[in-house]
Amino acid sequence: MICGRTPEELIHDIEKFHGFVAPGLLIGSYMVDLAFHFLGKDMEFGAIVETEYGLPDAVQLFTPCTIGNGRLHIQNLGKFALTLYDRCSFNGCRVFLDLPKTEKFPLIYRWFMGSEFQNKQSYDPLVRDIITAGFGILSHNPVKVLRPKERRKKQEIAVCGQCREAYRAKQGDLCITCQGKGYYEIPRNA
Amino acid sequence: MICGRTPEELIHDIEKFHGFVAPGLLIGSYMVDLAFHFLGKDMEFGAIVETEYGLPDAVQLFTPCTIGNGRLHIQNLGKFALTLYDRCSFNGCRVFLDLPKTEKFPLIYRWFMGSEFQNKQSYDPLVRDIITAGFGILSHNPVKVLRPKERRKKQEIAVCGQCREAYRAKQGDLCITCQGKGYYEIPRNA
Repeated sequence: MICGRTPEELIHDIEKFHGFVAPGLLIGSYMVDLAFHFLGKDMEFGAIVETEYGLPDAVQLFTPCTIGNGRLHIQNLGKFALTLYDRCSFNGCRVFLDLPKTEKFPLIYRWFMGSEFQNKQSYDPLVRDIITAGFGILSHNPVKVLRPKERRKKQEIAVCGQCREAYRAKQGDLCITCQGKGYYEIPRNA
Repeated sequence: MICGRTPEELIHDIEKFHGFVAPGLLIGSYMVDLAFHFLGKDMEFGAIVETEYGLPDAVQLFTPCTIGNGRLHIQNLGKFALTLYDRCSFNGCRVFLDLPKTEKFPLIYRWFMGSEFQNKQSYDPLVRDIITAGFGILSHNPVKVLRPKERRKKQEIAVCGQCREAYRAKQGDLCITCQGKGYYEIPRNA
């Protein structure tokens, strides 16, 4: 059982949430399970992932930490690693994909080093190797989280004089979008 | 039915993923449903949310877009709004909580303006009002997404000379953590 699931249930839940069985998300499920093994489950967890690939979804699927509830943070350090920690003591466990250990699994090694698998169709043998490898490609350390990011309290709200939408007052007299720095335009014929 | 769910199923799925029935996530489910109503479901969706509160989880629960698969982006503009768009044409639908429309629902208005509800226990009446209000507090616009963020391709990987972990080569000769800028320390007695 991984994260309380059989391999089949695990694959099902990953496909449903993520759209396909991403290798990084599958490895992430073992990483989360390993962290729980060392930490237990009796604490209020926070989580940090060190890449935006796959791991944010592993944490969101298999722990109580999500982006929307403010308990998962992405520190994009370009490493395939995650930390689960106690939000009171800041003690936690960091789990990482251990490069030398992947050498027994050439498909995993080559995926990890970015030299193959641009094409999702070719993931099946890799997925089988990840399930075979299980915890065997991971290492972990106890860690103390030094600079835990906690989400800002809600800030002062104002109503934009142009679009009449509510926005964070400190942006200025107009909201960012009405300042011309937004990400969209409304077509003229709309 | 909201996002293909009865109100009870909706509440269940929100609690399971997010930990509790966050008002913002519940409103977000109506926002996603409204966007689907105008866009249909026959496209490859991308999503942008304009706040980190609640809405990222609504998108991740009720659309194919997640942080980990690179199809959800957070543009933290401090507005309670989301855009779903077609990743080919960049045409989409932006849905926002429409402040004047909330005036008929004082609890929602006061939650939105940040003046109440610091305490989750007091959310029950607010949750009831949100379900009563439904789509009645939302507005939408067709939009063209101008600067869609697509995730970077995987970049060159190197092995850190100090910790021996793989990291993104452009960080320098050592990884960010070994440069002393990391978020954790490993206790001496570990």
